Amino acid sequence: MSTSPQESVRRQNLGALLRYVHVRGATSRAELTVRLGLNRSTIGALTADLATAGLIDEGVPQETGRAGRPSIVVRPRSSRVYGYAISLELERLRAARIGLGGKVLDTRATERPPGAEPAPAVAALAALVADMRRSAPADGVDVGCGVAVSAAVRHHLGWSDAALEPALAAALDAPPPFIGGTADLAALAEHTRGAATGADNVIYLHGDAGISAGIIAGGRRITGYGGHGGEVGHMVVNPSGRLCGCGSRGCWETEIGERALLHLAGRPVPTPGAAMATAVQHAREGDPGAQAAVAHAADWLGFGVANLVNIFNPTVVVFGGTLRELYLAAPAQIHRRIESMALPACRDHVALHTPDLGDDAPLVGAAELAFESLLADPLSR
Amino acid sequence: MSTSPQESVRRQNLGALLRYVHVRGATSRAELTVRLGLNRSTIGALTADLATAGLIDEGVPQETGRAGRPSIVVRPRSSRVYGYAISLELERLRAARIGLGGKVLDTRATERPPGAEPAPAVAALAALVADMRRSAPADGVDVGCGVAVSAAVRHHLGWSDAALEPALAAALDAPPPFIGGTADLAALAEHTRGAATGADNVIYLHGDAGISAGIIAGGRRITGYGGHGGEVGHMVVNPSGRLCGCGSRGCWETEIGERALLHLAGRPVPTPGAAMATAVQHAREGDPGAQAAVAHAADWLGFGVANLVNIFNPTVVVFGGTLRELYLAAPAQIHRRIESMALPACRDHVALHTPDLGDDAPLVGAAELAFESLLADPLSR
Repeated sequence: MSTSPQESVRRQNLGALLRYVHVRGATSRAELTVRLGLNRSTIGALTADLATAGLIDEGVPQETGRAGRPSIVVRPRSSRVYGYAISLELERLRAARIGLGGKVLDTRATERPPGAEPAPAVAALAALVADMRRSAPADGVDVGCGVAVSAAVRHHLGWSDAALEPALAAALDAPPPFIGGTADLAALAEHTRGAATGADNVIYLHGDAGISAGIIAGGRRITGYGGHGGEVGHMVVNPSGRLCGCGSRGCWETEIGERALLHLAGRPVPTPGAAMATAVQHAREGDPGAQAAVAHAADWLGFGVANLVNIFNPTVVVFGGTLRELYLAAPAQIHRRIESMALPACRDHVALHTPDLGDDAPLVGAAELAFESLLADPLSR
Repeated sequence: MSTSPQESVRRQNLGALLRYVHVRGATSRAELTVRLGLNRSTIGALTADLATAGLIDEGVPQETGRAGRPSIVVRPRSSRVYGYAISLELERLRAARIGLGGKVLDTRATERPPGAEPAPAVAALAALVADMRRSAPADGVDVGCGVAVSAAVRHHLGWSDAALEPALAAALDAPPPFIGGTADLAALAEHTRGAATGADNVIYLHGDAGISAGIIAGGRRITGYGGHGGEVGHMVVNPSGRLCGCGSRGCWETEIGERALLHLAGRPVPTPGAAMATAVQHAREGDPGAQAAVAHAADWLGFGVANLVNIFNPTVVVFGGTLRELYLAAPAQIHRRIESMALPACRDHVALHTPDLGDDAPLVGAAELAFESLLADPLSR
């Protein structure tokens, strides 16, 4: 079946309008005509089609206090149109139901079942999703599932996306999910609706058991040939440093990761996953070993960021996961390292941020993957 | 003036056809119907329009020896449709006239006039271009000028693209030229018609007075916010290494650049720009100091490539400029370093190459910039 040029333009416009309210939230028709460059009657026809399909609703805005007839406001139907998002981490499993517009409607979390085989984790994740499905609206539009897999799961456990995809599809009794890396999807989320909105060149650094990066360059996600780009944790920064699990010496994550903190702080920490927060807390309380450990890790954090700033010339760097704690413990020191090491042309426009979406960023980013086909062609389903 | 959907589709198709023969060279109409997914009569109408505009010609192919009527072949009119390309380097200035299809029609080169001010270099480049213009066909289509500026010129001389653009436009008596980095444009050229054809994730490493990278990720050039991405020469690989001109210690280019070779080889070299080739030659002739210097630089070359492979997950790495010599001097050693340091998932599909286009790569890439608006809308001029 071929599509006429007019029909193809209409579908593009439907997608552009739905994407606009998905990303920006409730928007007046007047603003949509300006932003999309379409006339009022076209916007009216498009919103009518999207409303009929149950994807948006329209209504008068709150009292504006201004004179004149208010422009009708178009809102994404977040509670009716949603996707599922999964975060597969070394220590825990998380799942969420996320509405059009990026609204987190429901969440579940549990510890990851121990063991090196993925089957128990897949079953546990499916149980979280099944539980959320029971409270989802019966007439809802389920756009599918996105999955964020942490670099630690990929490398320490060796679970490949290619193996997880059919296992999750079977367990969820659903089409194959969309899979990406945790840092990559957190970058997508912060770029779409968080600390990096409007920036075309972004590095999101995620710390957990390892360190990885999500990279937006020229407005697009950079994931490499096999989706394994962003493995900055194994950028060697200190060739005379300690041995890393990967076989190299002085990888970035051996200098700034949780294990490095554990090693350097010389104090026990309660649970894996809390080492960074605990070390930072002990440093704040005046413990000299913890202070030295935090200063060491912060210095190497700035060091590695300077390298990445020279490579990518970004305008925003976001510190997520355990690196959020580390950044907030020593922002001036990290700034100084970047100032002294990165080239002026590359560092001049860089702003350092923590994630607006906090720990939800990977989940919100995973849901973006699931929304993509709806946004590309809203009435095709 | 608004454009009808049909007209917009026709322009897209004209651009797609012209781009196809620009990139692939002479192509039969039969192959174009298959590759562009258009029917024979549409292809016939498009080629007729492009031929009338003087952008292509059509003819019967060489004798194929096969039975049946041969399909008409469409060729880019390389001798009539051309752009100018400039390479602004620390030691020399180069210019070329390059035809549609990427054919180098004419070249000129001269030493860069000494001094820290750009005016003499701009005047010398304009003279090279003016000289080529005299032998260009009178009825030719000049698509404009692309400029490759080496990272050494940007950083050692401090010449900004923003200052060079109007100066070159005035000296050339032409619209503002398109400017990019040497490594970035060499990457574009090798990706379009060289060693990295068909690869979507490519790192082109260029060595001259410094080291820089041109990066293709997801099929597109990655240049960063200000066009200064790819400054891999100032990725610090050896924090206990020697001081770099940028103020850091142990930058990649202090370990693998020409100055490093000069320092390590302990032998004089004839001229700047020839240090790498000379050191490699001396090493081949059995000079122990040169052998040690080459082994040192090759090892650090592999080290830095492993970092970049982990960050970008590319399928092709190309070694250009002085790094071509260094790679060819010790390919096995460089392979071993990458094998031992890069993560398996990132390194498994990487092929290492030298540039197919040799030293012409930055010029051919600069011309690609100049051709871009013609290819986007062939009949608009």
